[in-house]
Formats: sequence, structure tokens, C-alpha cells
Amino acid sequence: MDIDWQNYELDLLSYSNMVAMKKTQLVVDLGGTKIFSAILVDDKIIARDYRPTLAHEGVSSVLSRLIASIKDLLEKAELSLARIEGICIASAGIIDMNEGIVTVSPNLPGWHDVPLRNKIEHHFGIKTYLLNDASAAALGEYTLGAGRKCSNVVYVTVSTGIGGGIIIGGHLYLGSSGSAGEIGHMTIKTNGPLCYCGNRGCLEIMASGTAIAKEAISLVKKGKLTSLNEMVGSQVDDITAKEVSIAAQNDDELARSIIFKAATYLGIGIANVINILNPEIVIIGGSVSKIGDLLFEPVRQQVLKLAFKLPVQKVHIVPSVLGDAAGLIGGALFIQQRNEKHSNY
Amino acid sequence: MDIDWQNYELDLLSYSNMVAMKKTQLVVDLGGTKIFSAILVDDKIIARDYRPTLAHEGVSSVLSRLIASIKDLLEKAELSLARIEGICIASAGIIDMNEGIVTVSPNLPGWHDVPLRNKIEHHFGIKTYLLNDASAAALGEYTLGAGRKCSNVVYVTVSTGIGGGIIIGGHLYLGSSGSAGEIGHMTIKTNGPLCYCGNRGCLEIMASGTAIAKEAISLVKKGKLTSLNEMVGSQVDDITAKEVSIAAQNDDELARSIIFKAATYLGIGIANVINILNPEIVIIGGSVSKIGDLLFEPVRQQVLKLAFKLPVQKVHIVPSVLGDAAGLIGGALFIQQRNEKHSNY
Repeated sequence: MDIDWQNYELDLLSYSNMVAMKKTQLVVDLGGTKIFSAILVDDKIIARDYRPTLAHEGVSSVLSRLIASIKDLLEKAELSLARIEGICIASAGIIDMNEGIVTVSPNLPGWHDVPLRNKIEHHFGIKTYLLNDASAAALGEYTLGAGRKCSNVVYVTVSTGIGGGIIIGGHLYLGSSGSAGEIGHMTIKTNGPLCYCGNRGCLEIMASGTAIAKEAISLVKKGKLTSLNEMVGSQVDDITAKEVSIAAQNDDELARSIIFKAATYLGIGIANVINILNPEIVIIGGSVSKIGDLLFEPVRQQVLKLAFKLPVQKVHIVPSVLGDAAGLIGGALFIQQRNEKHSNY
Repeated sequence: MDIDWQNYELDLLSYSNMVAMKKTQLVVDLGGTKIFSAILVDDKIIARDYRPTLAHEGVSSVLSRLIASIKDLLEKAELSLARIEGICIASAGIIDMNEGIVTVSPNLPGWHDVPLRNKIEHHFGIKTYLLNDASAAALGEYTLGAGRKCSNVVYVTVSTGIGGGIIIGGHLYLGSSGSAGEIGHMTIKTNGPLCYCGNRGCLEIMASGTAIAKEAISLVKKGKLTSLNEMVGSQVDDITAKEVSIAAQNDDELARSIIFKAATYLGIGIANVINILNPEIVIIGGSVSKIGDLLFEPVRQQVLKLAFKLPVQKVHIVPSVLGDAAGLIGGALFIQQRNEKHSNY
């Protein structure tokens, strides 16, 4: 292939100008399983980095990986820190926004009162914000995704855990400390199964990716007939929601029943939220949502059955449009809003 | 007693001037058990009327009583309709605020899509608003009661049923149709007891005044030792939450355990709401709340156990300050706000 060097240089120049003239944000989406990082210009991702969280290795190990991810990303994009108007960490867990602390995170074992905002801000010397990951995704989906043209939006993420973010009257609602939207640890089954948070019968222990995997592992071990056996061989304990989703999409009866059961519980949680918040739209994202109708249909049926007719008539339950980018885009929007001092918090 | 006629006439004159010069609202609080009506000037009740709802007699009978209550109230206050700037019906149930309709109300049997706003507006020829009773009470408590100086407030009423009202960022949040705050039919016990709404394990069927009465009746019929026997004699089916409250306050063990159980479930529902909304204050009103610490302490303990530490540190769980007047005062404030077009809805 012949390279058109003249145009190539022009392109490089225009890219460099674009980054210099436009505001640039760096966002890290820190989840229980994955760390996604990205640099955004004009709400578009111009560089990204991915690495596993390996949360079981503990706080300092995850922190090192997070910092390395930011450094690699800046190198990859050939950007100096001076070009970045702000960093936003969109983290799983209960975030104290006043103090910039991850107070606890059921899917990040060992994280208790970690001053994540200050750690990153001091390390890079750049204005840093700390925000709940689902709140960031809610802002992203509301502004540029499935929630455009809506005013009251609930975003639900179903992956390792279950989280939520709330838009009220067109503004991200963070509550009085910054932890609003925490729907995953809503008790929906008093005296139900023990959740990682220490309580029983939380939505998360009934309907998350972890719940799906746990149920599948238990049933496979009981010798139930399923294609999951062929998929994982003797590594039964390695079954994740992903394998169950693939099997369900390939008409595996057992996998379908596991997804159906989780979706039915998810529908209970979402019906509760619809009765409380009467939103125009509920957007479901996160890795488990990618299975599509096998999840969405039982959720919608359950909501129809449980929530009051009036709020149900008003609400649409739809998949995320931005997918894995929702939190990254939302994080970039959050930096812009804070820096413009148009914040609602 | 000698009457000072000169001053008496002066008083009448000043009262009449006050009503003429200041804005006057008429509010009806329509609950499952009681109809409270009042005329308010400057957020103060200057005349009031009370009658039982007798909901079992059906929609038209309740409507007649409601209209009679308004007429009697105007007569009592010696006010002509022309002096009233607006009527607000603060009603139990799921209210379609766009259409002014009570779509359904678990504690008003037979109420389905009743166009209550238009019925009252046409009958009296006065601008009429229809609002959920707990939303009205939330506005009252936020503006002039326990929620002053707060920005994010949840009001919970525990009486015949359980309802809720939400203040977000200093504004009454009504949701996309007007039904936000409906916490009573949150599923907290999947496959739990059958609720009047048709679902199972709703907060209301576990923790309302009706739930307390039902539990007491069932236990008394089983022959449990309790002072309730002396209180009601052979009329066991007439036991209400009021008798149970009185017995509990008189150290009746059985009554205390019934209140404790209901409060424990109420705490589950309130913990769920605190995790979702991260409010500064949760105000509990309604007839059952009058029992005080016997209810509030188990609720607080349960919230401490179940909700995340961060939102729990921020929140106060307190009794209503305005009591039965909360909905009436809130209704009057709502009329003022709407007429001033400073509405948030």
C-alpha cells in the first residue's frame, strides 16, 4: 500500500489541532471485573484501554493497574497530561462524592473508605472526579443514548453486580451524599439467599451475572442435562453468565430457565423502582443485558404484572444504546458539567 | 359572661378583611378511612371538617360525602366560593395528574379511573387540583414541618395503607404521570402474603395499620394471652391498629411483638428507599406513626442493618411534625405554587 505522506501529515496536524482546541477528558470505568479507560474529545472516544480488574488481588493491586491503565492510555494517544481537562473515575460501589471516597463496594472486595479521588488527583496532578459507575452511565445514556428526549430516567446495569443511576428533571440525581441509585441491594426477598453485602434477598443476589453463574454451576454439579457441560468440560466452577447466555441463545433449556428466573427477579426490582420514581424510561445495560429479548421480555412481563398501570403505561424498558461506552461518555460529560459549574449536585 | 360587643365586631371585621385580602385555599384529604377537609389562609387552617370515608359504600357514596364536606366547611367558615383561589383534593391512590384521575386506589375499593378533579371542578366551578395524599403531605412537611432546611426528603405515611411522597432538590417530585412515591406496593417479600393490590409480599401488606390489625385479630383468635381481649370483648374482628397501639403502650407483650414485626418490615422498605434516593430525611407520618418509639426504634435499627453506611450516616428518620394537617397544608401550598406557576411538575 502506498502511503500518501502529504495527507497523512495533514491528518496528524488536524488531529493534534483538534485535541489542542477541544476539551479532552480521561475517564476510567472501574468495575468488579473490568477496567475500561478512555480519552474523549467532544464525547467521542479517541483512545481506549482495557484490562481485567482482578479485584481479588486487593486494593493496592487494583490501584496500580488503574494508574498503569491511565499512563498507557496517554502514551497510546500521544497526549501530555496538560491536554486533559479532568479525570473522572466511574467506580462500582457506594461513593461519598463530598470526600471522593469509595466507602464500600460489594464487587471490589477489601475496598473500605478508599480515598480514590485524592490518590489519582495527587498521582497525576489533574483535577479528578469520583462518581458511581451506574450514575455515569445514566448521564451518558440520558445525554447521548437511549434516554435522549426523556426527563426522568432510570439506568440499570446488570453485570457482576446490579447498579443504578437516576436522572430527575433532566439532571443527574446523586442524592445527599452521592450514593443515590443503589438499587442492587434492595431487599426483594426477605430471608432470601445471603448476599455479598451481608444482607439477605437483595436484588443483586437474585438477578446479577454472579447469581446467574452461581445457579448454573449449582445445577450443572447436580448433573442437569445442558450444553454447558460441553462448553466448559470439567471446569464447572468457571461457568460465568456469558456461557449461560450463549447456551440460552443456542436454545439450551436449562440455560434459558436460569436466565428467565434471573429476569423475573430483575423485573421485581424494576417494578419497585417504577412505582417509586414513575420514570419515562428504564434503560438496562451491563454485560448481562446483551442477551437481549431472553432477558427483556420476562422483565417487561413482570413489570406489567407488578407495577401500577399508570406508571407502566408511561414507561419504556429498553436496552442501553451506548453499551460499554455509556460510563465513559457519561464520565466525560460529568467533567464538562462540573468544569462549567452547571452541576446539579 | 359579658360580651364586649365593640371588640367582637372589630374582630369579625378583621377576620373578614384577612380572608378577603389573603389567598384562601380549600383542601380535602381523602384517605381510606377518613375525609379531612379544611380552609386555609396563609398556610393556617381556619376551618375544618371531618367525616369517615366509609369506602366500602362505593365511589358515588364517597363522592357525595366529599362534596357535602366541602359545602359544610364553606358554611362553617361563612365563606362564599368566590373567596377560594383553588380546591386541592389530596387523595389516596395512583393519581394521573395530567388527567386529574384516580386510576386505582387499593384502599378505596371500586375506584378505577374516577375523574375526581373534573367532578369537583364542575360541581363547584372553582379551579381544582388532584394530588396524591402522601405527595401533598411531603410538600407540607418539607415546607413547614420536619423537612425544613432539607433538600431531598422522603415522606412515608403509615395508616390504612402505606404511601410516600418525594422532594428532590427542594421541589415536589411527581414523576412522569404524577404517581411517583408509591412505596407501599414495593415487593419486599417475593411470594409473601397476598396484598389487596393483587400482588404478594408488598410493604403495605406487611407493615400497614391494616397488616397490624389483621395480625392481631388472627393471634387473638388463636387464643394468645393479651389485654386486647379485655379491650374489645367478643368483637375481635373490630380490632384496629389503634387498639394494638394502645395495648403496646400499656406494655402488652403480644401487641408489642405485633408492632415490632410491622416496624421491622417497614424498616426494610425504608432501607430500600434510602439506598435508592439517599435523602437527608425520612419523615414518617400517618396514624400508625403516632405510637412513637415503639415503631421508630425498630425501623431505625433495621435501616442501620440493611442500608449502606454512607446514606445511613446522612439520613434522619423522624416523626411528622404537622400530623394530620400535613396533607391539608401541603395541598394549600400546592395550589399556591400552581397558581404562581412556579410548579416543578
